[in-house]
This record gives sequence, C-alpha cells and structure tokens, in this order.
Amino acid sequence: MNAGFIGLGNMGQPMARNLLKAGHNVTVYNRTRIRAEELRPEGARVAESAADACRGDALITMLADDRALEEIFFGAANLVSALGPNTVHISMSTISVALSRRLAETHAKAGQAYVSAPVFGRPDAAAAAKLFIVTAGASEAIERCRPLFDALGQKTFVLGPDAPAANVVKLAGNFLIASVLESLGEAVALVRKSGIDPARFLDFLTSSLFTAPVYKTYGAIIVQEKYHPPGFKAILGLKDVRLALAAAEAAAVPMPLASLVRDHLLTAIARGQGDLDWSVVARVSAENAGLKTDADY
Amino acid sequence: MNAGFIGLGNMGQPMARNLLKAGHNVTVYNRTRIRAEELRPEGARVAESAADACRGDALITMLADDRALEEIFFGAANLVSALGPNTVHISMSTISVALSRRLAETHAKAGQAYVSAPVFGRPDAAAAAKLFIVTAGASEAIERCRPLFDALGQKTFVLGPDAPAANVVKLAGNFLIASVLESLGEAVALVRKSGIDPARFLDFLTSSLFTAPVYKTYGAIIVQEKYHPPGFKAILGLKDVRLALAAAEAAAVPMPLASLVRDHLLTAIARGQGDLDWSVVARVSAENAGLKTDADY
Amino acid sequence: MNAGFIGLGNMGQPMARNLLKAGHNVTVYNRTRIRAEELRPEGARVAESAADACRGDALITMLADDRALEEIFFGAANLVSALGPNTVHISMSTISVALSRRLAETHAKAGQAYVSAPVFGRPDAAAAAKLFIVTAGASEAIERCRPLFDALGQKTFVLGPDAPAANVVKLAGNFLIASVLESLGEAVALVRKSGIDPARFLDFLTSSLFTAPVYKTYGAIIVQEKYHPPGFKAILGLKDVRLALAAAEAAAVPMPLASLVRDHLLTAIARGQGDLDWSVVARVSAENAGLKTDADY
Amino acid sequence: MNAGFIGLGNMGQPMARNLLKAGHNVTVYNRTRIRAEELRPEGARVAESAADACRGDALITMLADDRALEEIFFGAANLVSALGPNTVHISMSTISVALSRRLAETHAKAGQAYVSAPVFGRPDAAAAAKLFIVTAGASEAIERCRPLFDALGQKTFVLGPDAPAANVVKLAGNFLIASVLESLGEAVALVRKSGIDPARFLDFLTSSLFTAPVYKTYGAIIVQEKYHPPGFKAILGLKDVRLALAAAEAAAVPMPLASLVRDHLLTAIARGQGDLDWSVVARVSAENAGLKTDADY
Repeated sequence: MNAGFIGLGNMGQPMARNLLKAGHNVTVYNRTRIRAEELRPEGARVAESAADACRGDALITMLADDRALEEIFFGAANLVSALGPNTVHISMSTISVALSRRLAETHAKAGQAYVSAPVFGRPDAAAAAKLFIVTAGASEAIERCRPLFDALGQKTFVLGPDAPAANVVKLAGNFLIASVLESLGEAVALVRKSGIDPARFLDFLTSSLFTAPVYKTYGAIIVQEKYHPPGFKAILGLKDVRLALAAAEAAAVPMPLASLVRDHLLTAIARGQGDLDWSVVARVSAENAGLKTDADY
Repeated sequence: MNAGFIGLGNMGQPMARNLLKAGHNVTVYNRTRIRAEELRPEGARVAESAADACRGDALITMLADDRALEEIFFGAANLVSALGPNTVHISMSTISVALSRRLAETHAKAGQAYVSAPVFGRPDAAAAAKLFIVTAGASEAIERCRPLFDALGQKTFVLGPDAPAANVVKLAGNFLIASVLESLGEAVALVRKSGIDPARFLDFLTSSLFTAPVYKTYGAIIVQEKYHPPGFKAILGLKDVRLALAAAEAAAVPMPLASLVRDHLLTAIARGQGDLDWSVVARVSAENAGLKTDADY
Repeated sequence: MNAGFIGLGNMGQPMARNLLKAGHNVTVYNRTRIRAEELRPEGARVAESAADACRGDALITMLADDRALEEIFFGAANLVSALGPNTVHISMSTISVALSRRLAETHAKAGQAYVSAPVFGRPDAAAAAKLFIVTAGASEAIERCRPLFDALGQKTFVLGPDAPAANVVKLAGNFLIASVLESLGEAVALVRKSGIDPARFLDFLTSSLFTAPVYKTYGAIIVQEKYHPPGFKAILGLKDVRLALAAAEAAAVPMPLASLVRDHLLTAIARGQGDLDWSVVARVSAENAGLKTDADY
Repeated sequence: MNAGFIGLGNMGQPMARNLLKAGHNVTVYNRTRIRAEELRPEGARVAESAADACRGDALITMLADDRALEEIFFGAANLVSALGPNTVHISMSTISVALSRRLAETHAKAGQAYVSAPVFGRPDAAAAAKLFIVTAGASEAIERCRPLFDALGQKTFVLGPDAPAANVVKLAGNFLIASVLESLGEAVALVRKSGIDPARFLDFLTSSLFTAPVYKTYGAIIVQEKYHPPGFKAILGLKDVRLALAAAEAAAVPMPLASLVRDHLLTAIARGQGDLDWSVVARVSAENAGLKTDADY
C-alpha cells in the first residue's frame, strides 16, 4: 500500500520502518527532518511538507499529544483539506477522546474516512512489530488498512464503528497498567519493610497468580529500582492518566484509583523524577513508608 | 504421614479430602461435627476433641479467622500444651501477621515447630489440589511436611525461616487481587458509560496485556455482574484488606489503594451486599457512575 | 466612578445594583439583554455592545466561566482593543489561573491595567454587599478602584502585584470550603448511623470548636438534607474543584483531598443531582453508608 | 464532691488540679506515683492503689488509651468490683466506641452508673478549665457530676442516655479537626508553590470565612512550620483516626477522608516525625509537592 506517516518519535520511527520492511511505499514526515532522513536508506520517500504525506491510501499520524495533532490538522498545515479523497486517516497516537471525536466529525463532514487505532506496547515492541492495536471506525476502512496493521503489530482488535471508542479503550488500558504499578509499589513497600526479599515475593507472584507480562516487566523494574532509562516517562504517564480522567469526567464516571495514581505521578514529578519510568510511582510508596531508595540516577 | 486437621469449612474440607486421597492418615476435627463425619467414609479418623487431633507428624489448622484460632490455641482447649513434641503446627488460614508472630513465639518457647503456610486459591482450586502455598518457618520442618503440601497444591513456595513473613505475603497477594478488582471496576464503568460493550473490552484485555487468570476470572464476573454465588464473600474480602492494613500500619507503611478498596468493600456491605463475591466492588464503581446495575439477587 | 459591568448573572446583577446604589455611573452589558434592562430603572445605562461598556474608569467582568470570558476578550468582540487607555479591567469571576495569567500578559502588552479580584460569598452576600474580595495587580490600579470594591464587599484584601495570585487564593479558598462539606458529610454519616441525632451533633460542633459560618450554614443544609434550592450548584462546584486541580497540576502539587471531593461531586452529578447545592457531596457519603436519604426533590 | 482521679498525664494532671482548686476532695492515682505526689501540696489525697480511688461520689479515668483502661478495669486491679455502689464512673479519655460499649454493659450488669465524658481541648485548655465536655449516660448521673464538669470545662454538652455515643462524637470531632489539618496542608502547599506568601493567605482566610479557632491555631503552626513542641503528637492523632475508622467500620460507614488523613499521618510517622504535632500532615503535603521543608528539629 501507499501510506503517509507523520510523527517519527520513539514509537513512530520503528513503526514506519516496519511498514517499509513489509514492502509498503511509505512517505514520511517529521517536524525535525533528520528523523525522516534516517529512513530514506530503507526506502522511505521523505515528504517536503505534512500535506505532501497525505495522498496515499492511508495517512498514519503518530504524534506526541493533542496539541501536535491539532496544530497539524487544524492549524496552518490544515491537513483536513490536504487529505486525498480516498486516503484513510489512521490516528495511532494516544490522544484525548474529545479530540478523536472532533476528528471523527470533521472527517465525516469532509467525506473522509477516519480510523482510530491506538497501540499498546513500548518502543521495543514497536520495533519488533509486536504491538497490540485497537481499531474503531468504518469496518470497510479498517479492512482496507489491515495490511498496514499486520506489519505493525501482533494482533489487531476491531472494536466497532465509533472511532473515539478505541481511544477510550486505550486510556482505560493504560489506566489498568498504571493501577498495576501503584498496587505493586504499595505491596513491595509492605514486603520490604517487613524484612522480606522483594525479589522472592515477585518471583512467587509471577509464577502463580500474576503471570501477565505487565507484572513481570514492571515488577522487575520496581524490585530493582531501575527507573532509568525510562520505557515510558512519568510525565507521559501523567498525560495519559489525565486524559483518562478527562474522558471519565465528561462521562460522569468517578475513578478514584486513577486520581490516586495521578497524585503519585505528580509527587514523583514534583521531586524531579518526571523523566524516569512511570513505574517510579512505586518509589513514592517506598518513600512514604520511610524506606531508603536509590534516588541517585 | 499422620496428620491432624482442624477446620473443615469451604476450603478445609476439600483440602483434608485431598490428603486422604494421597494416602495420608488424617484425624479431622471441626466444631460442627457433621463436617468431620462427612469425611469418615473416605477414611478419616474423626477426633473427639481438638486436642485429639494434635498427635501426628503435623497439625494443620484452617480456621475462619484470628478469633477461631486464638480460641483453640489460647482458650480452654489450649492446644499449645496438647501438641505432641514432634508435631509440626502448620497454620494455613489467612490470619493476622500479629497472631502469626504470637504463635511463632509461643511455639518456639514450647520447643515446638511452627510453619506458616497460607494458600492462594478459591474452593474449586482447593478441591482440585491446585492451590498455591506460601510457606515460611524452619526449613527442616517445611521439608518434613512437603508430602502434605504436595497433596494440597500445585506449587509450594518456600519463603524463609521467619514464619509470619508468609502471612505478609498472603495479605500482600490478596491486596494485589483486590486492586485488580478495583481497577477493573473503574475501567469497566468508564467503558460501559462510553457506550462500549464491556465484554469486547475484556476480550481485548485478556488476549493482550492482561492474560493472567485473575483478570479472566474476575473480569468475566464483573462484566456479567454475576456476583452470586460468591467464590469469596465481600465480608471476607474486607477482613483480609483490614489485616493487610493492620500489618502495614504496624510497619508504618501507608497503602492508599488498600484504603480505597476497603472503603468500596464497606460501601457494598453497607448496601447489603456483603454476602456477594468481593468483586462486587465493581458494582460500587458502576453505581457511583450512575449506571443501572443488576442489584436484584 | 464610571464603570462598565459585563455579566449580570446571579452574582453579577446584585453586584451591579450595589454599584448604582453607591452612586457610581454604571454601564451594563449582558448577553441576554433583559438582565441588563432590569437595572435601567435603577439608573444603569444599558450598553449596545460589550465594547460599549469598556470606556469608563473601570470594566468589571463577572462571567460564568473561562469560555465566556475568552469569547468576549479574544473572540469577535475583542475587548482588548476596545478597552479605553485608562480603563482598568477588574476580573471578578472565578476563572482559571491560566486564563488570568493570559489576561495579565495581554493587558500588560497593550499597556492596560488588569486587576484580578475574585469574590467569596453566595448571591445573598452579593446582594447585601457582604462579599469578601481578594485583589491582586498593580497597587495603584487597585487603589483607584477601591470605591467600587467598597460598594461591593465587606472587606477587600490586597494580595500583591501578581494578578493571577488572587485566582489561586480564590480556588484554594473554595477547595477549603469543599473540604468542609466532605468532612461534615462523612462525620454526619457516622453519627447518624451510630444512632445519634445529627442536629445535636452539629449544635455541639458549632458552639464549640467549629464556630465559623461555613460550618453553621452548610452543617444545617446537610443535617436537614435541604440541597434544594441550591446556593451554589454541584456542577459549578465541580468546575471550581477542577480549576483548583488544574492549577495544582501545573504547579506539580498533588491535592488528594481535592481529588476526593471531585470524585464525590462527580458521583452526585452522575446520579442526576448536579443542580442541587454542592453540599450534596454529603448525600454521597450517606448513600455509601447505606443510609436512607431524601433523594426526592 | 469526693472524687477519685486515675491517670495524671498531660491532660489529667491539670484537670485534677482544677478539681482541687474548685474545692473538691480528690483522691489521685497514677501508675508513675510521682505525678500523683505533685498534687499533694495542692490538697490531693494520694491513693495507695487504683482501687483506693474508687470510693467517692465519682471516679474519673483519664488514661492514655484502651489498653491502659482495660488493664485497670478488667485486669488484676479489677476496678469493676472495687467501685463503690454509689460511685459514678466518668470515663474522660479518648477510647474506642467498642470499649465504651463494653464498659457500659459491664457497669450496667453490676448496677453501677457509667458516664462517658470525653473532652475537646489541648493541655493549655485543660489547665485553663476551658475544655469542651461531651457527656452521655443516665441523665441523673450526669447531673450529679455537673459540679465536677463545671470545674473542668467551659461548656458541658449532654448528648443522651447512650454512653458510647459521646465517644462517637469525640472521634467524629477529632476527625473534623484532622480534616482541617489535611485541607490546610494541601491549600498551603498550592499557595506556597504558586509564589504566594502563606501568612497572607492565612490572614485572609481567618479574617473572612474561616474564623474558627481551629483554623487560626493550626494555620499558624502550619504556615510557620512549628511542629515542635507538639500540642498533640502525630502518633496520638493516628490512634484517634484509627479509632474513628474502627467505629465507622463497625457501623459500615466508609470515611475516605479519614483514610486519607491516616495515610498521611502514617507517612509522617514512617519518616520519623511521629513525635511532632499532628498538624505535621501538612509537611507531608509540602514534601509531596517538592517543597523544601524545615525538617530539622
């Protein structure tokens, strides 16, 4: 397929590379052009402008946040008008439900296809094409883009026709991961302060009831206090929890556990740890329990 | 081996049965004698008194709570003095860390072996000998009792010499499960109120990031709102969270997520739902979001 | 003095009336013109447009929220350019710290004076000229406007030169009131469920340690469950708590009690009680305790 | 009147002294006898044993906690049997509702009068006879003891015939004070981090909406960070919040704000600040916001 790809950050660049590897023709664009040029040897066409990436079968956006996407779609570049009549916009970034709703309405008015397709997975999963992709939108458009999804992830889940629903699921999923971090942080603090080796505790957990990878991956980081280098920074974690709380507030759904995680992320950020892995919420629990922590990094 | 078994409730009776099946000689005792008699056809010897069950290689206690165990050990029956010199006391109930500490000290003073060995698993896992067992105590005593553990569970984890540590791990583990219930409850409320089919949401979760059985089992209960019959009642869940908070308070460890779960369990109980499965905390989240719930049972 | 007044809602209209009573020349503007016309018999000049109210010694804005103020200042009306060179903009609405900051910068660039002067008090206090006014901005501008403040409130507090600081204080103050509501709600639930007459409990409190009016006023509402008619609606309370949380997040300050109040306000709103007085958070505590409440209104 | 007085700590000793000043005959007892001897020059009779203090018109107990009172009433001393037939037991310590219930039942069975009369006020208020006293029990017994209450406090509040109700009110009142500490702590952290002088903020608050002494007293401590010397230690504050939570749990009343205060008190204690004034919860908020605090004491 012919695809445009805007946003070549830690996630976007390996994703675009996987599309190239799978044989797709990819036109890439990034505000900082060097990230785009890095893909030229692998066959990418480097776009001169964002609009220049909007004329294939699909345009994938993988930008940092709402603001970046808004600027490109509703700002000077005005991609809504640049988008080809048969180009599906696939929004894969983690954005707010409200912005996804606005995009859905804007594209619908312009007669354009819009698929929301946020992903689960850290940069290493993106590089290994092991992402989990949650899609929502017109099923015809989703099916048309399936070869792209197949090149990016290990599993593509089709949710239904309402595109913003995929964003809700993405935010709810991230909230569940954040909850695991908080619960592990508190449990490990209790265990450590009771004189038990936290590595043995984790070993037991992950070989019995909590076999899911999320417990193994984050459990190891927390037990070893290896919050650097970050797989996903605390400041980004806060952004996602904020988006979950905003979606929940708009729907009048109290989420006290999300509020709790938010407060612990804020504490970590206030203490200058915003650039560490977001599992650093566990260090907040440790510090609140008076435990010594390896706060030098 | 020759083993006594005191406490034949929903968990204890199938556990004693599995010991018999494995060929051990088991002397059973239960306050309500009929539960003991039910095991006679399967080869159990029915004790006339609690003390009567204390003279084998090991005595397993599997009682409802601290009070039941205290009454039998420190009350009129005074099992500490009844216990044979070579009989290991294996405490398998979920009890407080403080009581486990007291038992450890009492048995040590009396020159008796004490192994703390709480279990993870619901009654069906007990019946299938699929429990996870966390043991702590003198390693020689644990090894001596291993044939009993092998007959009861799928995996026996040895933590170390300090018996009460096993109780900390048990309470920390239950706290982690409770955290899963709370997080699923909030996420499902958000998803439902956003017009998304919660069954599809759960299907995605458990086939991607959250593959652990605890998400599958409880996720299904929450999505279907099948809180009856209970696998583990809300009032018992509250007891365990209370024990976790007490252990944490004694160690000066704040556990705000445990406090949150406690408050939601209390809400369910205040609304007359204490005998439903403890995953009913998810209904509290649903009700707080103004969702209609299937509150008739 | 010659003053413009934009925004004649439940608070604004009685405030403008008090300026007229005190002998000031007031030009009033309101989107729904009838609210402005109601003040004509009392001597007000009714402006034809918002810009028409911007040419006196001062322009007071008392609008519903950020959006209303943004529309009038940065939208089509563009009051920044309409404002006379010697007209002080006095912003008295409860707005976000971020918007106040933006106004401060915009006015500074345009060489205009900006005073932030949010008020404490419900509509009856506004009518009785008993408001408490917190001002911040250039002290010369504040002093120039003092005759206006004197006509509106019982006390004007000067905070300092940084205008948005007054908005922080307003939001922090409202948070403290909200905290009183939450704490009274929980305490009254405990007392009621313990079989104690809550009116006697309140009587004791307010005649001993908690003599402040806020305990008397809200305590009586909560004890009598008279959430209708509202003095300040739950949906507006949620707005203010949200603004406090946003200001705190921008400053990296976790405020878990604000999060808790937010969640209880959301619960009340989710249950269709958003138009009741914001002290209805106490009913959430009552319902969570399984108490019967007078939920018919 | 002839009164016995057991428990001469920071509160008890000045209270006993006030009884003497008012002309009552007081027999005092304290485990550490020196505290009793100190009152001899002021006219106190020093008892040889606790039982020795039980034969007047009334016996006042003002002990540290449940355990101290239990030991003296149900332990070796067995005051229930020592109590004279016409001696009213006035329990003035802050004890659990459950123990107060047990005392009420025990005294009723023995045909003895029991009045629960916990007090509000710090040691300086005790010395100045400015305590607030909440009483419950048989009204005849309360009236008989009124001369004692008049010598101890500025106001005696009669709640009703059910003695433990006074303990509920005491715990609910302390919870309300703790809530003020928490809310002030969070608000001051926000204000400080926004660059506002917290003293000016407090000045505004306490001269407008929050005129109650509790805001003035604790606000000053928090703004000046003068947590030493303590008026009421954090470890005692935790005890009282724990008792409130226990009473609430027994009545199935969730109190999330009490849980929050508990967690912040635990954090302060875990950081070695348990002997500071309980308003040190405000320092936890400051530390969580990344503010520098005066943690050297």
